[in-house]
Amino acid sequence: MYWGRVYMKIKVGIIGYGNIARGVEKEIKKHKDMELVAIFTRRNVSEVISENKVYNINQIQKFIGKIDVMILCLGSFSDLPKYAHVVAKNFNTIDSYDTHAKIHEYHKHINKINKKSNTVSLVSIGWDPGIFSFVRLMFESVLPTSNTYTFWGNGVSQGHSEAIKRIQGVKTAVQYTHPKEDAINKVREGIIQRFKTRDKHTRECFVVLEEDNAENRRNIEKKIKTMPNYFSDYDTTVNYITEEEFESNHTKMPHGGFAICSGTTGDGNKQIAELSLKLDSNPEFTASVLLAYTRATYKLSNEKKYGAYTIYDVPLSYISDKSATDLIKRLL
Amino acid sequence: MYWGRVYMKIKVGIIGYGNIARGVEKEIKKHKDMELVAIFTRRNVSEVISENKVYNINQIQKFIGKIDVMILCLGSFSDLPKYAHVVAKNFNTIDSYDTHAKIHEYHKHINKINKKSNTVSLVSIGWDPGIFSFVRLMFESVLPTSNTYTFWGNGVSQGHSEAIKRIQGVKTAVQYTHPKEDAINKVREGIIQRFKTRDKHTRECFVVLEEDNAENRRNIEKKIKTMPNYFSDYDTTVNYITEEEFESNHTKMPHGGFAICSGTTGDGNKQIAELSLKLDSNPEFTASVLLAYTRATYKLSNEKKYGAYTIYDVPLSYISDKSATDLIKRLL
Repeated sequence: MYWGRVYMKIKVGIIGYGNIARGVEKEIKKHKDMELVAIFTRRNVSEVISENKVYNINQIQKFIGKIDVMILCLGSFSDLPKYAHVVAKNFNTIDSYDTHAKIHEYHKHINKINKKSNTVSLVSIGWDPGIFSFVRLMFESVLPTSNTYTFWGNGVSQGHSEAIKRIQGVKTAVQYTHPKEDAINKVREGIIQRFKTRDKHTRECFVVLEEDNAENRRNIEKKIKTMPNYFSDYDTTVNYITEEEFESNHTKMPHGGFAICSGTTGDGNKQIAELSLKLDSNPEFTASVLLAYTRATYKLSNEKKYGAYTIYDVPLSYISDKSATDLIKRLL
Repeated sequence: MYWGRVYMKIKVGIIGYGNIARGVEKEIKKHKDMELVAIFTRRNVSEVISENKVYNINQIQKFIGKIDVMILCLGSFSDLPKYAHVVAKNFNTIDSYDTHAKIHEYHKHINKINKKSNTVSLVSIGWDPGIFSFVRLMFESVLPTSNTYTFWGNGVSQGHSEAIKRIQGVKTAVQYTHPKEDAINKVREGIIQRFKTRDKHTRECFVVLEEDNAENRRNIEKKIKTMPNYFSDYDTTVNYITEEEFESNHTKMPHGGFAICSGTTGDGNKQIAELSLKLDSNPEFTASVLLAYTRATYKLSNEKKYGAYTIYDVPLSYISDKSATDLIKRLL
């Protein structure tokens, strides 16, 4: 940000040190208008190995006024609901809260804190919720009678991987979700239909057993394939692999997805719009989206527009480090 | 829009009556919060056959205060620069001005009028400039070291069709632009390369001759294929057809395109994001985008945020007729 004669960088803090936090730490170097001031952890500081400065979370108060935006790289299940509103009392924040059913309540609660504390919070920013939500709204607003279909994959579902790991006798496991080409192609052709769960995705599991033998293989395959909510409504394949194979081929977290809008205008003219993502690293992409919207958080705070916002509320120019004139001349 | 107890519709006017205007006229029926008040033409009113009320453009002053937003369905070459700033003195406006090199100047000029006149203008809203510009900015902000490649087609290029029609001996013609699958696939795989013009697109022409004979075919094919700027840098095919065939198979205006962003994060993880459109009717889709942003124009004017805006300046929630709560609960 250029303020008069002094070039001021946006001062960023990270709370948490999981996959997304490490993604933010790597990717922030590409954003020349930002600098990473500190990482805050709930663990022992000595346990966190980073080239950046690491502090315990209870030191955070010392950074009031020294950090412009805190990126909350915390889980949605219990951590964000516990910490986000506390941090928002003293800092602008951004997070990728993704418990869809509770976003409304979460947003409302943080908004109250922001208004009292003169801070800005951007909530539920990532690729879904986030960029996918964004294009779904764009598609349905432009083509009001259209249908938008969402497909996931190819990629790792962490929830499904965890479900397999909870089965007794499983040492570790990973689950890949694959969209069914046939269903995607139908949607792309503008064929409107209601798909069954089984018609849209398949599930592929790679499992390392505590004790690998034929009986365990049979039993655990059955347990996986019949697991309600997670697998029973899908065509599932189970592959058994060694721990070595797991470590060398299955520790990246690729993901991706398709949001395909199929509508008609006039006398039955088909109009198809599609956003697709193919991500080698889901957490690093999420980190990249968070960083772009960190810039928006900072700008909103500078304009004293205190409150909590979703991706729907932020003009796109706010995520760019370029001037309005540059954007019009070069990109529009 | 729900105002207290009265449900007020957004009152819309259309200026011009070409393909996009007719698209707006058809599609506005799907937007329950809008009503079409009048169409204004520069021609004789009796020449315009419409189920809606048609007035001559010089009657426009009578509608001050009776129309919330004027949709300017006029050409970018001479009409929009001539009329837009005049209309903006008394009305909120929206247009799809697409002379890329001059948008900055055009926007600045209209902005001055808006500020003086307490009106709002949205400029250059369509699918390109418009939705494509939008995702290009999103992609480059999220992945700052990425490359975004744009491909066009399959679809009609009006500029190229016109260029063929100007050749002596050509009765009518249409030109289709096709993206090269091979180039698209390379980009989708994350292969970074500089494409030559010839590597990205091919051009296919369907031509009706005034007088169809072998010599004319040979001559005109040569003239087309060697035409500088338009065809000489491409692999072009020329097909001769009858006027009947032209009328039955080549009067729709399909178009489409791909904006593909290819970047990396972390230690070389590929991240690919793609927006694609496949449109049976280019003007009807443009009309649909204009209508969604007509709602934004109206909202900005209601909030007295007078001035000229591009698609980068408008929060996406402004194009929806749904409440913020509904959007969070249903779509985020």
